Amino acid sequence: MSAHRQPVLGILGGGQLARMLALAAAPLGVRTRVVDSAADACAGQVAALTVADWTDKDALARFAEAVDVVTFDFENVPAETAQWLADRVAVFPNPQALAVAQDRLAEKTLFRDCGLATPAYAAVDTRRGLDFALEVIGTPAILKTRRLGYDGKGQFRLRTAADADAAWAVLGAAAAQHGLILEAFVPFDGELSVLAVRGRDGDLRTWPLTRNWHHQGVLSLSLAPARADDALKAQAGALARTLAERLDYVGVFALELFLKDGQLLGNEMAPRVHNSGHWTIEGALTSQFENHVRSVLGLPLGDTAARGPALMFNWIGALPDPAPVLRTSDAHWHDYGKAPREGRKVGHATVCAADAATLAARVDALAGALGRQAQAAPALAELARW
Amino acid sequence: MSAHRQPVLGILGGGQLARMLALAAAPLGVRTRVVDSAADACAGQVAALTVADWTDKDALARFAEAVDVVTFDFENVPAETAQWLADRVAVFPNPQALAVAQDRLAEKTLFRDCGLATPAYAAVDTRRGLDFALEVIGTPAILKTRRLGYDGKGQFRLRTAADADAAWAVLGAAAAQHGLILEAFVPFDGELSVLAVRGRDGDLRTWPLTRNWHHQGVLSLSLAPARADDALKAQAGALARTLAERLDYVGVFALELFLKDGQLLGNEMAPRVHNSGHWTIEGALTSQFENHVRSVLGLPLGDTAARGPALMFNWIGALPDPAPVLRTSDAHWHDYGKAPREGRKVGHATVCAADAATLAARVDALAGALGRQAQAAPALAELARW
Repeated sequence: MSAHRQPVLGILGGGQLARMLALAAAPLGVRTRVVDSAADACAGQVAALTVADWTDKDALARFAEAVDVVTFDFENVPAETAQWLADRVAVFPNPQALAVAQDRLAEKTLFRDCGLATPAYAAVDTRRGLDFALEVIGTPAILKTRRLGYDGKGQFRLRTAADADAAWAVLGAAAAQHGLILEAFVPFDGELSVLAVRGRDGDLRTWPLTRNWHHQGVLSLSLAPARADDALKAQAGALARTLAERLDYVGVFALELFLKDGQLLGNEMAPRVHNSGHWTIEGALTSQFENHVRSVLGLPLGDTAARGPALMFNWIGALPDPAPVLRTSDAHWHDYGKAPREGRKVGHATVCAADAATLAARVDALAGALGRQAQAAPALAELARW
Repeated sequence: MSAHRQPVLGILGGGQLARMLALAAAPLGVRTRVVDSAADACAGQVAALTVADWTDKDALARFAEAVDVVTFDFENVPAETAQWLADRVAVFPNPQALAVAQDRLAEKTLFRDCGLATPAYAAVDTRRGLDFALEVIGTPAILKTRRLGYDGKGQFRLRTAADADAAWAVLGAAAAQHGLILEAFVPFDGELSVLAVRGRDGDLRTWPLTRNWHHQGVLSLSLAPARADDALKAQAGALARTLAERLDYVGVFALELFLKDGQLLGNEMAPRVHNSGHWTIEGALTSQFENHVRSVLGLPLGDTAARGPALMFNWIGALPDPAPVLRTSDAHWHDYGKAPREGRKVGHATVCAADAATLAARVDALAGALGRQAQAAPALAELARW
């Protein structure tokens, strides 16, 4: 053992977000220890791994003793686990902020309190309550679990009120356990996210606004900086600040927004580093991962400016051939070291350039070489409008 | 265990170079395993570590079975160890190339064969041979061990021939074991290095020429791209290619050069990623670490262009306060996770900018905040001439 004392970052969850946090922590001289129930959790390839369940208090107590600060790779860590840890060690973001972001109803209530409009919504606890909510909200609408949903899971889309029985058959069992929420379906013009970080001293920084495209409920592409007018950018940044201050939030978070008729609507808040911020690894002066590590450890935050435009491709299920990406100038490959599985996020690639025209040319050539023209198409269409 | 088969990179030596290789390997989906005799080798914080001596053939045999390819963080791995491994697993660079680069006499002979002038030199095996060499070479001169020297270790500077006894008292014992070489001391105008990478398919790329400053024999600052005329840059690049092809070299190497009266003189070749290439992590489109991993695994090489000018500060002995670096826009902190010790390389920081004037302003302010004005001075003087 060395007499040199390095800070140790503890992460609940050992997936790709923990892996990228650990890779960003190392140059800061910070060691990382992750907790995951899976012995092959991919963050364990680059960080110390404790294999334990969230309910294993003995293992969590040893983990808490071995680390200086705890954070999350996974927002659905039970709030009671987060609070139990917070009684023993510094936990950021704080368990109360985590609890709000875990609950779609509390989250949307907070959005409205902060002046951020949302699609119409109503809490649903019973089958009869669903009928009532449908009368108020109308259709199309989406029934969602209040908790534990992500990447389109725990959701049912209702085209008409006649779909209520089918929706209840799928999600009714979850109503008693987690509660449900019915949200009006918004035929949005675009999806945006604000990535922000707040330090332990209250310093708040936002990265440039990011434009996102989903496919089957999972993020497919992120393009940054998004094209938007200055007033809209300023509004998005101000909302992120207000939310963070209301929650006394410390760390990185993503605020997902819909753009509809030039107005922003709040969709959800992810209380952690976020897939739509992966472009910041090469596309920004400081990545979301590095700034998250800095913030939870109380270090000064880094500059969040973009180096230039960047496009991230998400790889879902299995990786494409890496060679065309490796051969593309200023394109960057990220293999999470996970086994392929349908619907699983297994990697991403970010293409950077000094200007939009060069980015479009690189993306177009790369998408062709990968056979991913359909995936790239919405971003290429957007870049053509710049 | 997962059915997903990831390539495993084996590294002999577990210091900061292995650490930065492992951090670059992870996004490529490559796992890293290092061998080091020290249980607290800093690469072990981010990669699997086998604690073993170079002579422990049982441990090395298990290591060879666990990895797909072997490379080096340390050029003084015994050539016989490298060859023994090469009989069992792919080793890059090849042990013959390593052997040449380990021997200052073989290295300088190769330089001259490749058309690269060197300071005058002569082999020295005996005390009488030293007198003879001093007559031929003159003074000032430097007596060095042929093998196992680095960072100014294993060297003695002779101001006049009267220093011969003192030099022999220090290095005479090494003469029988490793051989010695007497080199003319060149009052050079500047030190440069060419960083290059050659793939398994023969593809060769060079990063922009780097200007270096040493302090007490150890690298203190690297500035890239170095200011030099195009003919000199082309000559340096052509020399790197010729050397690499002569050695059938695979991987990254650094060719250290003296600039004297507008001419290049060969100093030495480092058969590995090199301290003068640390700026490439943020300052180039592909870092030396990523391209080394790509090359030894047979993957396509990445673009070696610079993003803009970059200056690297080496931290020797102990780290300064990180806060001023963390607060500087586009400055990047690298703590190797090593205990402080006099003369030890414990970290570095790289400051990047879009142009030389911005870089100079950032470096000047940062050096002031760190109390490192003396360290930064030669690079600021050079930037002022741009």
